[in-house]
Amino acid sequence: MENKKVAELLERVRATKPLLHHITNFVVMNDTANLSLHIGALPVMAHAKEEVEEMVTIANCLILNPGTLDVQWVQSMNIAGKKANALGIPVVLDPVGAGATSYRTTTNLDFLQNLRIAVLRGNQGEIGALAGAGGKVKGVESIGDVANIESVAAEFAKKYGAVVAITGKRDIIAGADSLYYVDNGHERMAEITGTGCMSTTMVGAFAGVEKDFCLASAAALACFGLAGEIAARTAAGPASFRVALLDAVANLKPETVLTGARVTRVK
Amino acid sequence: MENKKVAELLERVRATKPLLHHITNFVVMNDTANLSLHIGALPVMAHAKEEVEEMVTIANCLILNPGTLDVQWVQSMNIAGKKANALGIPVVLDPVGAGATSYRTTTNLDFLQNLRIAVLRGNQGEIGALAGAGGKVKGVESIGDVANIESVAAEFAKKYGAVVAITGKRDIIAGADSLYYVDNGHERMAEITGTGCMSTTMVGAFAGVEKDFCLASAAALACFGLAGEIAARTAAGPASFRVALLDAVANLKPETVLTGARVTRVK
Amino acid sequence: MENKKVAELLERVRATKPLLHHITNFVVMNDTANLSLHIGALPVMAHAKEEVEEMVTIANCLILNPGTLDVQWVQSMNIAGKKANALGIPVVLDPVGAGATSYRTTTNLDFLQNLRIAVLRGNQGEIGALAGAGGKVKGVESIGDVANIESVAAEFAKKYGAVVAITGKRDIIAGADSLYYVDNGHERMAEITGTGCMSTTMVGAFAGVEKDFCLASAAALACFGLAGEIAARTAAGPASFRVALLDAVANLKPETVLTGARVTRVK
Repeated sequence: MENKKVAELLERVRATKPLLHHITNFVVMNDTANLSLHIGALPVMAHAKEEVEEMVTIANCLILNPGTLDVQWVQSMNIAGKKANALGIPVVLDPVGAGATSYRTTTNLDFLQNLRIAVLRGNQGEIGALAGAGGKVKGVESIGDVANIESVAAEFAKKYGAVVAITGKRDIIAGADSLYYVDNGHERMAEITGTGCMSTTMVGAFAGVEKDFCLASAAALACFGLAGEIAARTAAGPASFRVALLDAVANLKPETVLTGARVTRVK
Repeated sequence: MENKKVAELLERVRATKPLLHHITNFVVMNDTANLSLHIGALPVMAHAKEEVEEMVTIANCLILNPGTLDVQWVQSMNIAGKKANALGIPVVLDPVGAGATSYRTTTNLDFLQNLRIAVLRGNQGEIGALAGAGGKVKGVESIGDVANIESVAAEFAKKYGAVVAITGKRDIIAGADSLYYVDNGHERMAEITGTGCMSTTMVGAFAGVEKDFCLASAAALACFGLAGEIAARTAAGPASFRVALLDAVANLKPETVLTGARVTRVK
Repeated sequence: MENKKVAELLERVRATKPLLHHITNFVVMNDTANLSLHIGALPVMAHAKEEVEEMVTIANCLILNPGTLDVQWVQSMNIAGKKANALGIPVVLDPVGAGATSYRTTTNLDFLQNLRIAVLRGNQGEIGALAGAGGKVKGVESIGDVANIESVAAEFAKKYGAVVAITGKRDIIAGADSLYYVDNGHERMAEITGTGCMSTTMVGAFAGVEKDFCLASAAALACFGLAGEIAARTAAGPASFRVALLDAVANLKPETVLTGARVTRVK
């Protein structure tokens, strides 16, 4: 039954072409712009204080990804975020490398405090670090699991009124009263940079067309994970996997999702 | 007859290896640097106020692409542009997302006012917005056609003394007294980010070796469109198309251009 | 005998997963982040003054690549470099485009003066320009050979106490008392942007696990060149070569290195 909703949301993204305003990191800008197009959305990357408010006004979702943050960019993210909040446009946050430095941890906690975040999408280390639950991050990589990650996520979701989407072998999506598992994906996805950021862009595309952000996040991650499974069948290595992954997102059909998505609604 | 000129210009780019000084956006830097090499030019990306004047002095073309603009970068573009003007080095402008925000529209109009632009390369939405002719831009995407785009382009070309090159299903290249059509290209080119920016880099490479900027732009867009047609034959999706497109530019032979270019000189 | 050491170091990188803190240019960030993962290291790109000292503290190597430098980024590089020096973490410098502008030349000489650089990795033009030995650089490309490059490198290595690794048809790695040649590689590597920067990341990965920086550099460049040779066998053009190159780095086996590396220890 969940799969039908996932397929329906995929079709909705493609029909609606939501505009995704990214203020994001330098490493993944090209990947996430391309991914946006491939899933059926329109990307724009814009960070100038002079235009972020006007740009976000026409967007369907604002994606904040402080992966290569500095003071200027963080200011722009706050300005855009406040405007998005005022307009009721969902804000998706990717706390890249939270836990690796106190600057990253603090900046992301400030976002959670000062902005209304629709979805916080990170790995176990990042979410664990933000929640003060002992997440370990080396650079931008999560190392080691966090104990009781599901309840950590659920509590964090309640505290900040945000859906918490944790990607990993099993993706866990926790809202105030909901919990989803997504078991799609492939280990190759950890062999390239930016799959975390890409999954956030996927979440942004779906959150741009569906106000149930828990469902939107689960659907987005199922589609992305399924594309990863398809791509892994032919890839000769991680770089050709990356190309195949982007192709697979573009070529993903609702009927493939109907049979291939592995989404469980726990509550 | 036009095709012979296109083929000749392609050979000239490869023989001359023009240095293309880009001050460009973060999303496409890697793509446009690679494309520069593949067409036979040399790229350099440099934006520091401390060096742009010295860098542009050794360049054959300056490419300004404010796709991820902010105040600092716009200042550098102006400094470099003035120096290029003083030295007679052609300046090619890509007004990415003009029309989407007033900051983008104003910044690009200021460039046109304050600098001598050799070629303005944009999509219909961007050019229509700058010309006040009702261009519509969503993010950085042109949505919907502009009425009488050819005369809009011709008038704009006269007003600013710049060649106006509009890419789309049919590319339109308008100078003060000339008009070219280019009918090469493939719809896959709209499925990836940065093909607009790449076409601007192509124009820059050709404008770096040929002072008839109308002809140079038409030749550049014909070669790029033709490479797109070749790439589309084998691509399994947009990401593999992107790889194939770059390969096709590098592998493009003058004899392929002789038979494959679809350039019409209207006047 | 050298090959055995190269294979052993490759295994050590994969076993240790050194964290490579990059402060690098916008053009290659994605490539070098992916390459880091593919060789077996962990990348992090972080440039904010607020976090570079904390980030470098957990790193195994700091890679400074001022390819798209400006005043802010150079400041961050100095801050991170000083911290790395204080902690004994090796600093690898890639002087992209030194010689093209005085700003680039001066900035890189300042780094050499003010920081303890473990390895300086550049092309002949860049190293020749920094050494005042007549290197010629067009944009970021070396044009023409430098006379007596080996003794230039050796003297420069002595002057600054840094290993000087010069990539080209034959790679030359000069330390105070050592000299290595690496004859791996393929001409296709010059057809894409960023192979220089990627080779620096390779050097950083190996320097992160081996304190004999001459040996580490030679091993890194042999592995990278060998991957280039493997990739060239199947590539249809430069863009598919780039994908194949990254795949080949990821798939490179110690036993392939044992037979394929072409490393000569001259002294």
